[in-house]
Amino acid sequence: MNHQMAQQGDIAIAAIRDAATRIMDHAVRTPLLESPMLNEHLGARVFVKPEVLQRTGSFKFRGAYTKISRIESSLRQNGVVAYSSGNHAQGVAAAAALHNIKATIVMPRDAPQIKIENTRALGADVVLYDRYTENREEISRRVCRELGATIIPPFDDVDVISGQGTVGLEIAEDMAAMGLHADKVIVPCGGGGLTSGTVVALAELSPETEVWAAEPEHFDDTVRSLAVGERLANAPEARTICDALSSPTPGEITFGINRQHLAGGVAISESDVADAMVEAFRTFKLVVEPGGAVALAAALKGHVDVAGQTVVVICSGGNVDPELFGRILAGERVFRS
Amino acid sequence: MNHQMAQQGDIAIAAIRDAATRIMDHAVRTPLLESPMLNEHLGARVFVKPEVLQRTGSFKFRGAYTKISRIESSLRQNGVVAYSSGNHAQGVAAAAALHNIKATIVMPRDAPQIKIENTRALGADVVLYDRYTENREEISRRVCRELGATIIPPFDDVDVISGQGTVGLEIAEDMAAMGLHADKVIVPCGGGGLTSGTVVALAELSPETEVWAAEPEHFDDTVRSLAVGERLANAPEARTICDALSSPTPGEITFGINRQHLAGGVAISESDVADAMVEAFRTFKLVVEPGGAVALAAALKGHVDVAGQTVVVICSGGNVDPELFGRILAGERVFRS
Repeated sequence: MNHQMAQQGDIAIAAIRDAATRIMDHAVRTPLLESPMLNEHLGARVFVKPEVLQRTGSFKFRGAYTKISRIESSLRQNGVVAYSSGNHAQGVAAAAALHNIKATIVMPRDAPQIKIENTRALGADVVLYDRYTENREEISRRVCRELGATIIPPFDDVDVISGQGTVGLEIAEDMAAMGLHADKVIVPCGGGGLTSGTVVALAELSPETEVWAAEPEHFDDTVRSLAVGERLANAPEARTICDALSSPTPGEITFGINRQHLAGGVAISESDVADAMVEAFRTFKLVVEPGGAVALAAALKGHVDVAGQTVVVICSGGNVDPELFGRILAGERVFRS
Repeated sequence: MNHQMAQQGDIAIAAIRDAATRIMDHAVRTPLLESPMLNEHLGARVFVKPEVLQRTGSFKFRGAYTKISRIESSLRQNGVVAYSSGNHAQGVAAAAALHNIKATIVMPRDAPQIKIENTRALGADVVLYDRYTENREEISRRVCRELGATIIPPFDDVDVISGQGTVGLEIAEDMAAMGLHADKVIVPCGGGGLTSGTVVALAELSPETEVWAAEPEHFDDTVRSLAVGERLANAPEARTICDALSSPTPGEITFGINRQHLAGGVAISESDVADAMVEAFRTFKLVVEPGGAVALAAALKGHVDVAGQTVVVICSGGNVDPELFGRILAGERVFRS
């Protein structure tokens, strides 16, 4: 049994069910939404799982709360540290506040202002760094040493993954409660935490369901890594409006899980992402950030074939600056890539 | 027993429960959302009931579907007619399509483009009229005579009111399921259909809960009518960005119910409405149209005192043009009044 198998064994469905119990009183059980008009347009039945409605505006609270709740309590008192472009930061800050412990968050200086402000408003200490010249892991480890705090990794951690897996658990339970079966579930994929948690839950509870990863163009590290069977990095000079999905490479644990279970992955252009954000606005009345809209874009634009099928699309986050959102609604070209 | 009492007797809680059963397979049971950060800021526990997530983007589908489902089937075959600035139009169009009957919708020429487009996309015939020089009721009656169709009134109808009352029923049930009690429920109020349905449900299921109506400045006909005990009209020259709440006067049935049960009403400035839309965007990741945001504005801006209380705020609709929404996010002055 190799390392990856051992790690994945740690994320049995029982660990996801345990996470669901831990977060129950604090997380939003997000509904499944659909639009008959959109369904007719696509010739499919498409449900949106709106994690934008989750506490702190993204799914990240699930993993952060699960991880913190599993830290041994005497150690937990020293606080936690996280590095994040924003959504994980807010998730950790909120989860730490609920445990009455201190959170220090290492964030890139160019993260959306709304994410930095919200992280501070949630009571965390924010340490800013330069995304392109400094190493966030190194800064985080230094802060950890100084405080005796525990790092809450953004994705490559069995506790975090099992927390994110509650999204897949809820999809399986809610579809079954409606007497439905998802042919496909499409997941926005950065480091792969949400994707790997979701595939573990669905492999157990809805094994016929194909799980697809959607990534931004130029940050399609998981798509390319799946093709060659090993972890590849994105080009250091790559840029994307999907700040939530800009991690440089798949995680070791997450990729070990994803390569075993994913049906496939697709890379989405920023123009398709913007169109999906407008569709989420018009049809679902949801504020979806660029990185949160890649899976919806994959379904809308035919990157993943949905015709004649029942498909669940995760809209993973909604923390977007009002100014950028307004420009995208106005049809301006806002692309970084 | 006067006319109003008799009418109200028709909207017993049993009629609302019946409506809930009728809409169950077609309407979204919208969740209750809260933000710990906002709660802390307000010193209150504020839940949002996001009817923006409802089928067709507003609560109106509930009443329209209930009404159409109760029309005797041989008559129903002739189709239905509705006059509406947009949300009721879409609700009726969608409900008619589900019953496989024709809907003709009489809409003001200056309704938000998104509402006109969506109504047509839902399969309805749209007849446009001038809001300030033509009489929509008269046009609707003429179309009705020509087709033998049934008018689906926007609010002043016991079936429509009982359908909208399912919002109050869900609030009472979901708060009880969480072991909570709402001190206040604040409802956006136009003609008073949602307000009266909600007060009937809560008077029965949560009699200690105060229900408050929120109206736009210059369209505070219910607030002023409550003060004098009879139905007053708004000034014909009044304008508002809250197009969903621009009905000229309270309904006869709705006002009869509201004057008996409402704890009070407040009038909200367009500036406060715009701020509430931005807060809904930032904190709840919801697209709320101006008229849908008046109740949230009432809580945020202290028009209704929420300090130390548990309050449910209904965000009643999200059908707003992208261009207007973008301008409000950008902080532009967009006011009509």
